[in-house]
Amino acid sequence: MAVYTELAAETLEAFLATYDIGQLVSFHGIAEGVENSNFLLRTTQGDFILTLFERRVQASELPWFLGLMQHLAQAGLTCPLPVNDREGKPLKILAGRPTAITTFLPGVSASVLDEGLCRELGAALAKLHLAGKGYSATRRNALAPDAWGPLLRSCSGTGDTILPGLTSELEQGLERIVAEWPAKDALPTGQIHADLFPDNVFFRDGQVSGLIDFYFACTDFLAYDLAICLNAWTFTDERIFNSAFFMALLEGYEAVRPLSAAEKNALPILCQGAAMRFLLTRLYDWINTPANALVTRKDPLAYLWRLRHFQGRH
Amino acid sequence: MAVYTELAAETLEAFLATYDIGQLVSFHGIAEGVENSNFLLRTTQGDFILTLFERRVQASELPWFLGLMQHLAQAGLTCPLPVNDREGKPLKILAGRPTAITTFLPGVSASVLDEGLCRELGAALAKLHLAGKGYSATRRNALAPDAWGPLLRSCSGTGDTILPGLTSELEQGLERIVAEWPAKDALPTGQIHADLFPDNVFFRDGQVSGLIDFYFACTDFLAYDLAICLNAWTFTDERIFNSAFFMALLEGYEAVRPLSAAEKNALPILCQGAAMRFLLTRLYDWINTPANALVTRKDPLAYLWRLRHFQGRH
Repeated sequence: MAVYTELAAETLEAFLATYDIGQLVSFHGIAEGVENSNFLLRTTQGDFILTLFERRVQASELPWFLGLMQHLAQAGLTCPLPVNDREGKPLKILAGRPTAITTFLPGVSASVLDEGLCRELGAALAKLHLAGKGYSATRRNALAPDAWGPLLRSCSGTGDTILPGLTSELEQGLERIVAEWPAKDALPTGQIHADLFPDNVFFRDGQVSGLIDFYFACTDFLAYDLAICLNAWTFTDERIFNSAFFMALLEGYEAVRPLSAAEKNALPILCQGAAMRFLLTRLYDWINTPANALVTRKDPLAYLWRLRHFQGRH
Repeated sequence: MAVYTELAAETLEAFLATYDIGQLVSFHGIAEGVENSNFLLRTTQGDFILTLFERRVQASELPWFLGLMQHLAQAGLTCPLPVNDREGKPLKILAGRPTAITTFLPGVSASVLDEGLCRELGAALAKLHLAGKGYSATRRNALAPDAWGPLLRSCSGTGDTILPGLTSELEQGLERIVAEWPAKDALPTGQIHADLFPDNVFFRDGQVSGLIDFYFACTDFLAYDLAICLNAWTFTDERIFNSAFFMALLEGYEAVRPLSAAEKNALPILCQGAAMRFLLTRLYDWINTPANALVTRKDPLAYLWRLRHFQGRH
């Protein structure tokens, strides 16, 4: 939640001269994005987002992400479109950092969910999956099940300081998930967002107006992306499962892309896996972030309740 | 340089319903403003800045500041116009904080100055002084010469750790400034900005397009405001006085509002005073801000060179 790199107007004006998007009118650092510097940019031709990639995203992976976003936007998805410079390149260097300009999307994230929003989100996710067809370059999911064991072991029992018995519960849960995880070719695979939480979705008048933050996107089971959304969108802040939201999201998805029988059968274990993935990264961050850091630590246990729910334990 | 208060879209939508400025389209926390939370707000009717006042500004003083900005904007100055709600109030409460919406001003701050910008700035400052006429409510300058002695004493010799002999040099400098400071009615008085540094001035195509951040504004000698700008705009980063910038700023000012003989005579001591004021607050902040804090400490000595310059010592 911070701008890391400060930019002088003169520097930005010179940078914009390499694009064909008009002259600088105004720019403001915005408090958004994870470990990137983002600026809301107005030119004489419109509004854009300027992103300087600071750390988390590997520079070598940026062409894949930007290429995916260009492919999706050109296929009609409401995602940011990376803008090419006069030489046809979307990825540049500014202030020593890999930098991209994308189109600005209007809309606001929902803090209060309802069935209608869940249905819209489901449909938008399915459209994303269909739009991803034809983008043939693949990116391995760095946070797939084979990464979860090492992640849990790197927390080496510290989880028990948060909840006694947590580590062994996760070991057992993980063992079952890995054992039952679908084989590589068992389910339809494609480009997935992999982090489509409510703060990455903009709405206007109850319709999805933008999907953002594609820097966890990868190539994996499409139904796993759905499982991530079912985790992220269908539990209240009080960790209570909302079956109406769950059904609405699923219906919205299937109205655009019906699930196969194999996908439906796999959904419970995929939902357990998605809960495990966010539980483990939150646990890791919890342990490795000082309590007084400016970054808000996210409660790992919120995903333990989800894991137990999808295990049928409550 | 941070957003302190997070806002949910639903909260903001309900807040906007008390205004007549359209429906929410998007909002982004912007990394600007000193200890306030600022949001760039787009509605179906245009762009606005939403400010939640967090700490520095005393809530009881906000009506004076907002009233001044409304007066100046209505007099034609390019400053943010506080927008009234449906009941005619510009100051409201949101998320428990005093809150105002102002119009959005395009333009960017200049990092690289030149004579043309200094001339424009001088003219804009004089227009501000003329536009302030008729706003009869006064606000005492809390950082006037009578405050500087206590401020220096509160640093109690710590200045010498930055530069040996600094404290006694400042004591002597201050004694002379206070002795020579013009009497209350000796110079034209009015509403002054009192902090018109380059980051508070927007330009478009070499013209001033906006003056912002009026939360140091007060009622004082108009020529003292000019002295502050002469300090802030006419020295390079390397602390070298640029006489061409100085002359351009003065000419720009006088083209709109010619100085009286008394003001011209007082200018050297007013410039020393302005240097002293920023030197002392920077010194105070330097001593009271941990070196590892996220806030950038500003070098007090940059203003010692200015003070010496206006003392005629180099």
